[in-house]
Amino acid sequence: MGAEPIRKLERNEPAIVTTVERLVERFGDRCQVGAAIREQHANTTTWLANLPPDAVVFAESAEEVSEVVRLCGDAGVPVIPFGAGTSLEGHVNAMAGGISIDLSRMNRVLAVHAEDLDCVIEPGVTRKQLNEYLRDQGLFFPIDPGADASLGGMAATRASGTNAVRYGTMKDAVLSLKAVMPDGRIIKTGSRAKKSSAGYDLTRLLVGSEGTLGIITELTLRLQGIPEAISAAVCPFETLEGACNAVIATIQSGIPVARIELLDELQVKASNAYSKLDMRETPTLLLEFHGSEAGVKEQAEMFGEIAAEFGGSDFQWARAAEDRNRLWQARHDAYWACVGLRPGSKALATDVCVPISRLAEAITESRRDLDESGLLAPIVGHVGDGNFHVSLLIDMDSADEISRAEQFMARVVERAIAMEGTCTGEHGVGHGKIKYLRKEHGDTVDFMAMIKQAIDPRGIMNPGKILPDDSF
Amino acid sequence: MGAEPIRKLERNEPAIVTTVERLVERFGDRCQVGAAIREQHANTTTWLANLPPDAVVFAESAEEVSEVVRLCGDAGVPVIPFGAGTSLEGHVNAMAGGISIDLSRMNRVLAVHAEDLDCVIEPGVTRKQLNEYLRDQGLFFPIDPGADASLGGMAATRASGTNAVRYGTMKDAVLSLKAVMPDGRIIKTGSRAKKSSAGYDLTRLLVGSEGTLGIITELTLRLQGIPEAISAAVCPFETLEGACNAVIATIQSGIPVARIELLDELQVKASNAYSKLDMRETPTLLLEFHGSEAGVKEQAEMFGEIAAEFGGSDFQWARAAEDRNRLWQARHDAYWACVGLRPGSKALATDVCVPISRLAEAITESRRDLDESGLLAPIVGHVGDGNFHVSLLIDMDSADEISRAEQFMARVVERAIAMEGTCTGEHGVGHGKIKYLRKEHGDTVDFMAMIKQAIDPRGIMNPGKILPDDSF
Repeated sequence: MGAEPIRKLERNEPAIVTTVERLVERFGDRCQVGAAIREQHANTTTWLANLPPDAVVFAESAEEVSEVVRLCGDAGVPVIPFGAGTSLEGHVNAMAGGISIDLSRMNRVLAVHAEDLDCVIEPGVTRKQLNEYLRDQGLFFPIDPGADASLGGMAATRASGTNAVRYGTMKDAVLSLKAVMPDGRIIKTGSRAKKSSAGYDLTRLLVGSEGTLGIITELTLRLQGIPEAISAAVCPFETLEGACNAVIATIQSGIPVARIELLDELQVKASNAYSKLDMRETPTLLLEFHGSEAGVKEQAEMFGEIAAEFGGSDFQWARAAEDRNRLWQARHDAYWACVGLRPGSKALATDVCVPISRLAEAITESRRDLDESGLLAPIVGHVGDGNFHVSLLIDMDSADEISRAEQFMARVVERAIAMEGTCTGEHGVGHGKIKYLRKEHGDTVDFMAMIKQAIDPRGIMNPGKILPDDSF
Repeated sequence: MGAEPIRKLERNEPAIVTTVERLVERFGDRCQVGAAIREQHANTTTWLANLPPDAVVFAESAEEVSEVVRLCGDAGVPVIPFGAGTSLEGHVNAMAGGISIDLSRMNRVLAVHAEDLDCVIEPGVTRKQLNEYLRDQGLFFPIDPGADASLGGMAATRASGTNAVRYGTMKDAVLSLKAVMPDGRIIKTGSRAKKSSAGYDLTRLLVGSEGTLGIITELTLRLQGIPEAISAAVCPFETLEGACNAVIATIQSGIPVARIELLDELQVKASNAYSKLDMRETPTLLLEFHGSEAGVKEQAEMFGEIAAEFGGSDFQWARAAEDRNRLWQARHDAYWACVGLRPGSKALATDVCVPISRLAEAITESRRDLDESGLLAPIVGHVGDGNFHVSLLIDMDSADEISRAEQFMARVVERAIAMEGTCTGEHGVGHGKIKYLRKEHGDTVDFMAMIKQAIDPRGIMNPGKILPDDSF
């Protein structure tokens, strides 16, 4: 009530102390203030410092989330939603202190409407949990960012991953949301209709808003039928450029690949060692085809012709579910495999996305740049979307290495933007990428800030994320 | 400049007079004030009265649009963007007078990036114009609302139509927009990357905002490759319910139909007469399959089995392009065919969308309701999405008939919302559907209004559309 907007990211110590006291009183054991738990709730896999919240409330309902938000709002204390802690750009850091709302206990599947290919879930449900739940009904949820993230968090960061080339991103998968807004009201942004023209698209506004406009407390998600046939393949290439050009041609031909993932030579080495595989150590595509038996065969043949043209050969097929799972597990473990290349280092993931025609250029320039910079860094990518990651293996005790890595990251982003791409394909802005937002969006950032200001005038919702200071 | 916000939809006569004078001085012949041209720019195919603007400016560039917006903004005079005038809910009515900005001369295709499956166009390009332009390159733009609408207008109303079941709506087709915002600034909402997590999704916020937040001056659109094989079919059913249930089963089976359209018995009669066809006069599905030769055959066979199960039979195939075109032209002329059933009447289109599992129920209840109400009204639908239209043929001189039709429309919407559907699948809110917005969205409407207020504090952008008065 009259609290100053949180713009300077300064701690309001007395307000925080009082608020934590009130929350402990209200939630008892479900409000934790221990250092370890607070640090875990500011988990970050970037070089951004861990900035823990002052308390963690384990919410069990939208009404409880609303209660915490109202209480914090009245005092001008930040609230930071927390799902599974797998975000990569410091999204859950408490820049000005405040309360982490842990949503992991809100993990019920509320309804599966198999006949409408949708489901209604709480935000703490993880993607693996959902897919296990759905399997018996012949359905699956396709968005797969690798980590077993919570679906609320995936919506909040507009996540995507390996299947996005065929099935889209969280922007496409979310039909409707319930969210607690900064004034504590609980809203519902849409219906279960497959399409609607009824007013502003607040579903898509909340997807990707990283907890800065509202806290997602329920999701209605589109599901897919498990395809009749699934077939995966490993396809090694002579050169990185050849692999990229095969991807470009595949997408341009309209082959509806379900997954088309790149591992560069270094990543293949790392994954062979970590995941006990025996892939040829050369730039490699991992693919998956979904469809009818005939359709999958047709797609695979079409891809085979393209691959041969660009120096790809020696396919290995994985048709059995366990072989496929082993392959994709290896892909998902790419991060840990990287770290294994240089024990003691931290793997810092960049994330850019370019128009598909620029993919080969963007990746080969990054590779050349890395080699010149003397940085050890495998490249992986959801290349069917033009999206790739460079995993920089950094000795976090070396200021020089960190500085070289930061400069490299800036160059990757600048090249992507110059190619009409984006500074983040799927990881989000957090505070790690705020500095690039205006470069990419120009004055558009001011309109984002107007929306933030209008909906969250006290600035309590995950302050210090997405929006640069100069936009207010 | 101190102008009062336009909330009460009252004309500010002196400001309008001065503004029109200044625009005539600045734009000469390209600022028209004649009654006929003004009325044409408030064209509406609903029963909503024609409320013409005070002048029409034919803009030729984003900079000119910006100039008009700044001038109007300073004076507190409304601006209403105009594309092709095919909207259905009074979107271009000048509720408080003001200036219509006609964008039809901004109709250049600026770039086609065939290798990235995208293009960059001005907002006045129509969908037919774009598809003619693209044909030689083996590409097409799938969103097809029937009318030859402008693509800027289609984005503004979040249009969809016959192909949406396979290719999505304008929400999915727009990669990025340029828009003139209420303060006259020109922003760009995204890049050409296929996906991005870089901040709030202003692309999706502007899509469907009906000119109330900004005026779209450039669109980057996703394109599709023209499929190797296309096959269309007409499939008559014994009953309306059978046809609907066949649609439900088709969608649930995951058959990737490109089009699946319902005409009820009355619409078939009307279309036979108007389009000189000889379809059996019974509830009928029109279908189109896209894919490889083998894929299309497979899809058609799968659909055939489903149709037979629900009383469908006697397929007629249209494989030649000219036969297909004739069929879809008839579908697109459904509106005119309706009017032909009752010369002198006006056809008023309702537009709701429900989860697919509720489709048969929603349509058969509407049919029963119509028959009980004694209203003459064919039903057509983009039924693969759960979206359908009732075309009420009304004698506009009969207050009683109008009143019965209005009551019917309200019931259709209420049933759709009760079935977890939406009050508009694709036509938008305009001012025709404002009264249903709160029923569908509850408090969410207040957050829409906060956004409107923040971005357009003077309320100059197409006032009186989308947002109910009680939301400010």
